Amino acid sequence: MFRASVLTLFPEMFPGPLGTSLAGRALGEAWQLELFQIRDFATGKHRQVDDTPAGGGPGMVMKADVLARAIDAAAPEGDPRPRFYMSPRGRPLTQERVRDLAAGPGAIILCGRFEGVDERLIEARGLEEVSIGDYVLSGGELAAMVLVDAVVRLLPGVMGHDQSGTEESFEAGLLEYPQYTRPQVFEDREIPAILTSGDHAKVAKWRRAEAERITRERRPDLWAKLKGE
Amino acid sequence: MFRASVLTLFPEMFPGPLGTSLAGRALGEAWQLELFQIRDFATGKHRQVDDTPAGGGPGMVMKADVLARAIDAAAPEGDPRPRFYMSPRGRPLTQERVRDLAAGPGAIILCGRFEGVDERLIEARGLEEVSIGDYVLSGGELAAMVLVDAVVRLLPGVMGHDQSGTEESFEAGLLEYPQYTRPQVFEDREIPAILTSGDHAKVAKWRRAEAERITRERRPDLWAKLKGE
Repeated sequence: MFRASVLTLFPEMFPGPLGTSLAGRALGEAWQLELFQIRDFATGKHRQVDDTPAGGGPGMVMKADVLARAIDAAAPEGDPRPRFYMSPRGRPLTQERVRDLAAGPGAIILCGRFEGVDERLIEARGLEEVSIGDYVLSGGELAAMVLVDAVVRLLPGVMGHDQSGTEESFEAGLLEYPQYTRPQVFEDREIPAILTSGDHAKVAKWRRAEAERITRERRPDLWAKLKGE
Repeated sequence: MFRASVLTLFPEMFPGPLGTSLAGRALGEAWQLELFQIRDFATGKHRQVDDTPAGGGPGMVMKADVLARAIDAAAPEGDPRPRFYMSPRGRPLTQERVRDLAAGPGAIILCGRFEGVDERLIEARGLEEVSIGDYVLSGGELAAMVLVDAVVRLLPGVMGHDQSGTEESFEAGLLEYPQYTRPQVFEDREIPAILTSGDHAKVAKWRRAEAERITRERRPDLWAKLKGE
């Protein structure tokens, strides 16, 4: 059972999209979700979770002391799960990392808001900063959902046998080949003849060549990595 | 008014996280959301939206004819909005692209499922394939939410003045500098003295140097791009 513990100021966003479809059907079976409202770990009359940035500047920064209490509650000492802080400053998430996570016990995921969290919290609790892409979101919640969704679909029993995830983008370091299905003719466009030839070896060869062409054209960075290895 | 039209088999996922917090408060004010259930555009007794891949292989492919009808309903001829298909094969989304989109009239966003969509649909409707990162999701819905959230927070009036988005990751091509806030001492760790010195010029210089250091250490790819320009 993959156990995801999410720390957020907006627990009501969850499971949200993760409660539907593939991930939703597997919730409680292949994986479980625990939510922690960060505000519950704030003290004082105002239950303040953030404060102005030291040194000035716009926005608010989430407080280290409050977050530390929340993390310690979600992940008692000895909890073997990796601890993530979703942040555009983090290491980019890759399918390889997703596969590693799917083989593990779960994840603790801290969702930031505002201008981020106190740097000392990241250091003191050994958080791994992970980024889902080179853009800025209004908070870490959608990023956490992306991480969980990518992992959950790979858990045993979640996808059917016929959708084994073995022929898709980033397997073998390539983007996926183009797909076609009926009708045979769509707005004067035909399915490439080779795909309906019945010659499995030729189909496989064509698909490999297309996957390579698309990767080379669209993602020279991935292509270079593949060739360098 | 930024107008997002989302085509999906799971309209019930929306607005979901986009209905809360920053994006949720601005929904109907700064932006609007239109949902199209792809299945409504299927014909026949079974309202089939997908079929087996030409050439064989696992999974199902979404049908070009059904999707074309859905897109034509969502975006009549002359609709100036860009048309996206969320896909790991696409061009990686960047903050720069997000800013461009936020200055425009909106977006048509097709969410795929299964093994993807018929390639002829992408060509015939001029869809731009966009990827939110190098990993595979169970569908395009979370990716669409990520795209919309990133754009919406930049729309006029959505963020307060004090959170203007001008000092954050990817502005100036750098990752963001570390943030600190009270308490002054957290688990024996102090806020860097320079940040509490009151010397604004020194603070700005330190932050710039830290942003550069973090970018160089964590994202040599971004750093190389910055230096090459």
